[in-house]
Amino acid sequence: MALWGGIEAGGTKFVCAVGTGPDDIRAMERIPTTTPEATIGEALAFFQAQRRQLGPLSALGIASFGPVELHPESPKYGFITSTAKPGWRDTDMLGAFRRALDIPVGFDTDVNGAALGEYHWGAAQGLDTFIYLTVGTGIGGGGLINGRLMHGMLHPEMGHFRLPRDPRTDPFPGGCPFHGDCFEGLASGPAMEKRWGQRAESLPAEHPAWALEAHYIALALSSYICTVSPQRIILGGGVMAQRHLFPLVHAGVRQVLNDYIQAPALTEHIASYIVPPTLGERAGVLGALALARAT
Amino acid sequence: MALWGGIEAGGTKFVCAVGTGPDDIRAMERIPTTTPEATIGEALAFFQAQRRQLGPLSALGIASFGPVELHPESPKYGFITSTAKPGWRDTDMLGAFRRALDIPVGFDTDVNGAALGEYHWGAAQGLDTFIYLTVGTGIGGGGLINGRLMHGMLHPEMGHFRLPRDPRTDPFPGGCPFHGDCFEGLASGPAMEKRWGQRAESLPAEHPAWALEAHYIALALSSYICTVSPQRIILGGGVMAQRHLFPLVHAGVRQVLNDYIQAPALTEHIASYIVPPTLGERAGVLGALALARAT
Ligand SMILES: Nc1ncnc2c1ncn2[C@@H]1O[C@H](COP(=O)(O)OP(=O)(O)O)[C@@H](O)[C@H]1O
Ligand SMILES: Nc1ncnc2c1ncn2[C@@H]1O[C@H](COP(=O)(O)OP(=O)(O)O)[C@@H](O)[C@H]1O
Ligand SMILES: [Zn+2]
Ligand SMILES: [Zn+2]
Repeated sequence: MALWGGIEAGGTKFVCAVGTGPDDIRAMERIPTTTPEATIGEALAFFQAQRRQLGPLSALGIASFGPVELHPESPKYGFITSTAKPGWRDTDMLGAFRRALDIPVGFDTDVNGAALGEYHWGAAQGLDTFIYLTVGTGIGGGGLINGRLMHGMLHPEMGHFRLPRDPRTDPFPGGCPFHGDCFEGLASGPAMEKRWGQRAESLPAEHPAWALEAHYIALALSSYICTVSPQRIILGGGVMAQRHLFPLVHAGVRQVLNDYIQAPALTEHIASYIVPPTLGERAGVLGALALARAT
Repeated sequence: MALWGGIEAGGTKFVCAVGTGPDDIRAMERIPTTTPEATIGEALAFFQAQRRQLGPLSALGIASFGPVELHPESPKYGFITSTAKPGWRDTDMLGAFRRALDIPVGFDTDVNGAALGEYHWGAAQGLDTFIYLTVGTGIGGGGLINGRLMHGMLHPEMGHFRLPRDPRTDPFPGGCPFHGDCFEGLASGPAMEKRWGQRAESLPAEHPAWALEAHYIALALSSYICTVSPQRIILGGGVMAQRHLFPLVHAGVRQVLNDYIQAPALTEHIASYIVPPTLGERAGVLGALALARAT
């Protein structure tokens, strides 16, 4: 069976793996994200070592932080483009790995990668239109529509539109440097930390932070539901590790939509409509393997 | 050349046509929407008369008001389902025409029809991911994503998500019976009429109504842009007949997104990114012909 390589390229670490799926990860390594030269160099060293040990790789997949260029016809295809991360602007990710490893390389956003992993092996099996949203340091979304990964003009930026905010109940003005109180500005992990003065993971389950967090997530999901009518929504990322958020989000979406859209998924079965990722922690790197597989 | 039939099935009128495209409409008729029996009966009589005169039709397309059932595997495929319009709940549109005319029938939402028309003959030629939004009696949206019409769980309901509203500058609580101040509740033609006490078409161009209307449209479009990253957005419907809204919407979207998404379409070329439909008044019925063509 063909062996693939995968890289979940994140702003704090690159997770590299070789294998064929969730039950068959042959090797895995975490590399801190420093400079492109050092980080890409270490990742290359990992794959070259694995090739010597495990045999040839038929393809590599890269699920990358962004913004990234996804149009194959662009001269910057496979680049990280206008990122604020120091040193990484205009980095030719795909090219670096393709030249050094001389194998086909699949390339997409981190969230599209995670979505593809959930599609092959997780919570989105058999669906052709669904959204994968991550609520962590940032908020980002991807998914499949009509059976293909979401691209369009660039790629979705699902954390950066405006939600209603009532300054009487939430005076925190939001933390997005571009938009203030966009979804990410209100509901990312760092936004929670700024609003409440402590890290999200240290807020107890009965803290009012969680009802407000669920409210914003419900507003955002309602907007995605009205816009693309997904068959399911998968919610991952550090903040969603708080599983008690899920029932709050279910109730919130029902309240916001108010039974306007008559679909059993939204009325009777919302607990299986808005779900955690099945692949958990490894969704990212398995997504990268799925990108390799699709190449 | 094959001749198609098309029906733009609206809540106030059915527009029926026979032809092959915008430059070749052989016959057209407007039928008031009364009961399903009477309205469908008249439409059938029109197509039967045209067949006798112009020759056989190779397919019919129906672009319908909704909600509609679009899953071919559903027993209610081709039905108008849970509409509030008296008498029309659970109407088998597709079945009625297929049985009587005995030709293939394509069926979709009115806005997906209009989008397909613009794709073949109008403002969306050559694009694979774009949105068509109508701002009229209601607000609805459709479009193509990855080259195929937007369906998903049901179909988009792009007018019914929440936007930020500042009650100090806009005390009107919104007119949607389900959501109050959703996009449609704030910005449809009837919402403008309720807010300002006169029909939208009678408000002069310098009235503050238009800046507020453009603001809400800009917020909604920004949300679609972040969610699906369309390559273009086409804005139709009665309210958008006010062409002076377009520059206001362009400026509003730029202000809301604040150059976060670095795409020339959003920065330099926004006037060709958010555009009126090319097919104008006839977008609906031409869309229905396009649905027939795609069948
Ligand atoms: N168990 C947890 N509960 C709540 N918040 C968490 C938890 N773990 C991490 N977070 C928050 O999530 C953010 C990190 O997100 P994460 O998805 O883990 O990483 P990243 O987005 O950087 O890839 C931080 O703001 C952190 O406070
Ligand atoms: N020229 C115009 N300028 C502003 N508003 C208009 C204009 N024409 C129609 N409208 C408004 O648009 C709504 C009707 O929308 P329209 O798209 O024409 O029909 P429908 O949505 O019923 O198919 C009404 O609320 C009307 O006030
Ligand atoms: Zn933002
Ligand atoms: Zn509504």
